[in-house]
Amino acid sequence: MNLKEFIRDVQDFPKPGIGFKDITPLLLNPQALQEGLNQFVKLVEGKKLDKVVSMESRGFFFGPLIANAIGAGFVPVRKPNKLPYETIQQEYALEYGTDILEMHVDAIQKGDKVLIHDDVLATGGTAEAVVKMVEKAGGEVVQLDFLIDLTFLNGKEKLEGYTINSLIKY
Amino acid sequence: MNLKEFIRDVQDFPKPGIGFKDITPLLLNPQALQEGLNQFVKLVEGKKLDKVVSMESRGFFFGPLIANAIGAGFVPVRKPNKLPYETIQQEYALEYGTDILEMHVDAIQKGDKVLIHDDVLATGGTAEAVVKMVEKAGGEVVQLDFLIDLTFLNGKEKLEGYTINSLIKY
Repeated sequence: MNLKEFIRDVQDFPKPGIGFKDITPLLLNPQALQEGLNQFVKLVEGKKLDKVVSMESRGFFFGPLIANAIGAGFVPVRKPNKLPYETIQQEYALEYGTDILEMHVDAIQKGDKVLIHDDVLATGGTAEAVVKMVEKAGGEVVQLDFLIDLTFLNGKEKLEGYTINSLIKY
Repeated sequence: MNLKEFIRDVQDFPKPGIGFKDITPLLLNPQALQEGLNQFVKLVEGKKLDKVVSMESRGFFFGPLIANAIGAGFVPVRKPNKLPYETIQQEYALEYGTDILEMHVDAIQKGDKVLIHDDVLATGGTAEAVVKMVEKAGGEVVQLDFLIDLTFLNGKEKLEGYTINSLIKY
């Protein structure tokens, strides 16, 4: 099964000139959803992981599925003021200005082996912020697994030294 | 396993006087996450469902897990301008003013049997909007399953005639 066939190109979203990779057809097809999960599980075969950390909102689609399949806990990273309990924060750069991500202070324990998952690796800014946040909390980032890598945006450059996988490349 | 033990009360969130039910400790514990999924799957035993529809963002934690476990497709409902493709919309009332939810036009096919899932049933306004949207698209709402029912807010009143379940009640 070729997962790429379940990704829909939507032109001019979110703004004119941008081609958006829509993953909802993949979620909508039970066989594709299962195949995606199988491929993600294969990527961590033989590794003992304690936590899967994913970013709001589209990282939440596969994050809990992967966590449950490998017997790890799931940790949501969210935009500011969404998580109710005490958080640690990480600022990161946007095209213009900065933004902040948050994670609960008790989500990662010192020495936790962590898989970071998001739907798309673009410029790598968000992923880099999550890596910093996990390491600040004492976790060890074992690898970062994405559904899609927009390789032409060179997101991997910001994540040098880390193991990065993706199921679909553009 | 008593899932309620994995729900954390956070006082004065999102505003003073409100007691918030934080589900992240449940997500963080692999056994509790599996137990939650098992209980959700039990609620639909013997029913043939085509789609699981969940609301942004916290409905996304268990929605894809349930969909994958029962062999259904997953459909995200999101806030305006988040879904890239053509959408159908549904307005709903907030305490002050109104808000809008969106779903892709091709997410539900006529006759689809649909499970609606969200993390919390509060006043029922969001759930009612999603029911309307699913029915507008020609789907049949088989039932609505929530992780938590804040029964004192009487959300069920807005959903009369529908089958409603929850794993944890307050």
